[in-house]
Amino acid sequence: MGNKLTNRTDNYSSWYNEVVSKADLAEHSEVRGCMVIKPHGFAIWEKMQRQLDEMFKETGHVNAYFPLFIPKSYFSKEASHVEGFAKECAVVTHYRLKNSDDGSGIEVDQDAKLEEELIVRPTSETIIWNTFKGWVKSYRDLPLLVNQWANVVRWEMRTRLFLRTAEFLWQEGHTAHATEGEAIDEAKRMLDVYAKFAEDWMAIPVVKGIKTESERFAGALDTYCIEALMQDGKALQAGTSHFLGQNFAKAFDVKYASKEGSEEYVWATSWGVSTRLMGALIMTHSDDNGLVLPPKLAPIQVAIVPIYKGEDQLEELRAKLNPLTEELRIRGLSVVFDDDDKRKPGWKFSEYEMKGVPVRLAMGARDLESGTIEVARRDTLSKQSVSFENVTDHVVQLMDEIQTNLFNKAVRFREENTTEVDSWDEFQDVIKNRGGFVLAHWDGTAQTEDLIKQKTKATIRCIPNEGPMDEGNCILTGNPSTRKVLFAKAY
Amino acid sequence: MGNKLTNRTDNYSSWYNEVVSKADLAEHSEVRGCMVIKPHGFAIWEKMQRQLDEMFKETGHVNAYFPLFIPKSYFSKEASHVEGFAKECAVVTHYRLKNSDDGSGIEVDQDAKLEEELIVRPTSETIIWNTFKGWVKSYRDLPLLVNQWANVVRWEMRTRLFLRTAEFLWQEGHTAHATEGEAIDEAKRMLDVYAKFAEDWMAIPVVKGIKTESERFAGALDTYCIEALMQDGKALQAGTSHFLGQNFAKAFDVKYASKEGSEEYVWATSWGVSTRLMGALIMTHSDDNGLVLPPKLAPIQVAIVPIYKGEDQLEELRAKLNPLTEELRIRGLSVVFDDDDKRKPGWKFSEYEMKGVPVRLAMGARDLESGTIEVARRDTLSKQSVSFENVTDHVVQLMDEIQTNLFNKAVRFREENTTEVDSWDEFQDVIKNRGGFVLAHWDGTAQTEDLIKQKTKATIRCIPNEGPMDEGNCILTGNPSTRKVLFAKAY
Repeated sequence: MGNKLTNRTDNYSSWYNEVVSKADLAEHSEVRGCMVIKPHGFAIWEKMQRQLDEMFKETGHVNAYFPLFIPKSYFSKEASHVEGFAKECAVVTHYRLKNSDDGSGIEVDQDAKLEEELIVRPTSETIIWNTFKGWVKSYRDLPLLVNQWANVVRWEMRTRLFLRTAEFLWQEGHTAHATEGEAIDEAKRMLDVYAKFAEDWMAIPVVKGIKTESERFAGALDTYCIEALMQDGKALQAGTSHFLGQNFAKAFDVKYASKEGSEEYVWATSWGVSTRLMGALIMTHSDDNGLVLPPKLAPIQVAIVPIYKGEDQLEELRAKLNPLTEELRIRGLSVVFDDDDKRKPGWKFSEYEMKGVPVRLAMGARDLESGTIEVARRDTLSKQSVSFENVTDHVVQLMDEIQTNLFNKAVRFREENTTEVDSWDEFQDVIKNRGGFVLAHWDGTAQTEDLIKQKTKATIRCIPNEGPMDEGNCILTGNPSTRKVLFAKAY
Repeated sequence: MGNKLTNRTDNYSSWYNEVVSKADLAEHSEVRGCMVIKPHGFAIWEKMQRQLDEMFKETGHVNAYFPLFIPKSYFSKEASHVEGFAKECAVVTHYRLKNSDDGSGIEVDQDAKLEEELIVRPTSETIIWNTFKGWVKSYRDLPLLVNQWANVVRWEMRTRLFLRTAEFLWQEGHTAHATEGEAIDEAKRMLDVYAKFAEDWMAIPVVKGIKTESERFAGALDTYCIEALMQDGKALQAGTSHFLGQNFAKAFDVKYASKEGSEEYVWATSWGVSTRLMGALIMTHSDDNGLVLPPKLAPIQVAIVPIYKGEDQLEELRAKLNPLTEELRIRGLSVVFDDDDKRKPGWKFSEYEMKGVPVRLAMGARDLESGTIEVARRDTLSKQSVSFENVTDHVVQLMDEIQTNLFNKAVRFREENTTEVDSWDEFQDVIKNRGGFVLAHWDGTAQTEDLIKQKTKATIRCIPNEGPMDEGNCILTGNPSTRKVLFAKAY
């Protein structure tokens, strides 16, 4: 079939690249670091977008759109923000090209130099807070609950499709509130939305927690996050929600008149998830046969393949399968009836398997006689002959079953790959030889965190909201610790 | 109310800017030429996107995403394309900033200069065709029917919100076909989709036609277009669909193996509509009281305002209006029940009028007694007292009525402002004093077209698909003409 993948155990990284490529999800463009998201990959992203957008709107948010370009000087306004973001970025310096004098092509017109360089947004806090200044006058204007779907650019030297690219797609929520408490509630609420989305839609179990100071977003007072565990034992940060305090309000002078008439700075949050989630989705569920998708995010949920010789047999199958297709669609499923004559059934089977279609139905001459149809599940790779009469109900039910099975399987994997350790030796051993999440005591200092990272490449993924709350001693320094935190090597 | 607008007849351009601003649709950002699309404006654009996207998918298209940046050299590959596009654009030359030596801020790191400059896409033909090269191998891969929703940048010196901005949002369809005929059919099909969308959803009647050679898209063999007439008598090009021949296939070497085994260049189309449509929507329907929206594109279709003194009366009204809100939502309408205590009813009325909410319901103490409710139509500004019992059906029906009324009104306006002329004097007079669409004979040469433009500022909007087919003589040169074409001054 030409579709054979490297096994995950042999080379996880090659396996990942091959799935992305052979399942037609994305490819590198000729523009350094920028990817092309192919139709099948984009269809999955669209389903994710659609659901997230609905959840944002249900929690009272509205969408808006802010400029792609940010004047260079904006980045200097919030001190810690500039350190985190303004360095590796795409800089627009000119606004015109011209034919080159020697006629060999086109060149930058040096007369068209911008007075102030423009930065292609790596994130939009600065331009959005500069805009919010005009939108917020009184307590009546608050809260401001705004989201943007956009492309952003962060110059990256080493890129991997979906996981780390110079340009990527994301959403960034930006909210303004009258009080500190409201802003903190909002930041936590959106983390809950992300966690719910990851678990109920992506079938990815996540650990909710809070970042240590050194892993915080540049400009935030607190960064809440969800962390997922990939099949190779590495963690992936799947979403972050930041409580920004009054940092940006002060940097951009955004004040409101309170009910009592005083002038107050507003309180802020920002939160985002990106096409990186595609990487998490692929690495959580897929297998050595290709992509595996939870039914709720599968662009095609059911593929129906007729197996026939000659037009007469195909007509007979069509008479059965066209109504079945229609019935499944009425039940809300996305179905392809693939009677394309240019491809053979074997090719189609392999293709739908590689692309992660949750259920494949196949029907041939023998099925016609016996009144059956073959049902193949992508998650378990099992096949079953089912009575044609009951197949609709069966398939509808399978959608829930597969969605649940994928989630449970991922939970089991995480449980099996989460280790509590109490000594430095044990910690080093698990990180090196076993991977996964490691719960261990830490003395709460950035210095120790950094030392552990240098020695093992493991970082503190988060201080989990839930988990063992026993006191103990830091695995590295032996200093007192109030609770264990979550370590892992990470993407 | 502070909401008074300049009258359209006094200063159409000021009126437009004020509607955009006061209806909270968009505003200029501090980044030259780039707009901020505000939540209310974006909600309308989202409804347009959603519907267009559905129509694209119904006609077999899939979405994908291509890089924001295009290497400079790509633009030189299609000769006419570079002339049309590569000149006024945003050029990325560097990929890093650094702290300035004197500590005063940040500056471009001159060590981080790109080997080849990157252009922020003004349109994506070149990068997409460079990608298609890898996607098309055999006739089995065709047709390729791809669409992209994206932001694009064309450096503009004079900008107007929605109508002409440096950055704007759009969709661009790019398709590849095995035969010339299929590609032409596709280009025409998508023009029909645009026309249907404009008329059925935006309630804007459009003239379908084909551009003259000088108005063609840079790189196209034929450009099909839809043209709409604004209330000030100027035309607005609302969408274009291009038959690109084999120009891009040849420039980027995209060939396919035919069923018979020969190697052939593919045939191409591209087609797009942008946030410019927002300008068309505003200028077609709105009045001196603010925005007027066709119900199908209104983010809020019904606003319900209770008029009360004290909490007891409000409770009584809520007991009636909450169920009504629910009922209208069940009927598929987007409804706001506005019992916000921070604003007075008069403020709310004015606000919903300005924002173009198609129907506003108001209920007070007297209505409670008489079992009535006040229904106000935004399109006619008429008010009517309606029996509370029947109000749901009444409002649901009003949606269709308003949608149809807006379209019919725009058709009447266009009819009244389309003039057929047979002489140069008449032509000049109508263009100068009356405006609107002008049907006139033209000798078919670019030279005459250009002369007419220089003398009157009127351009040939299109050679209409329908319309008078009588022969005659060119209004300017007297040379023979096979049919009248559509002239106007245009946005």
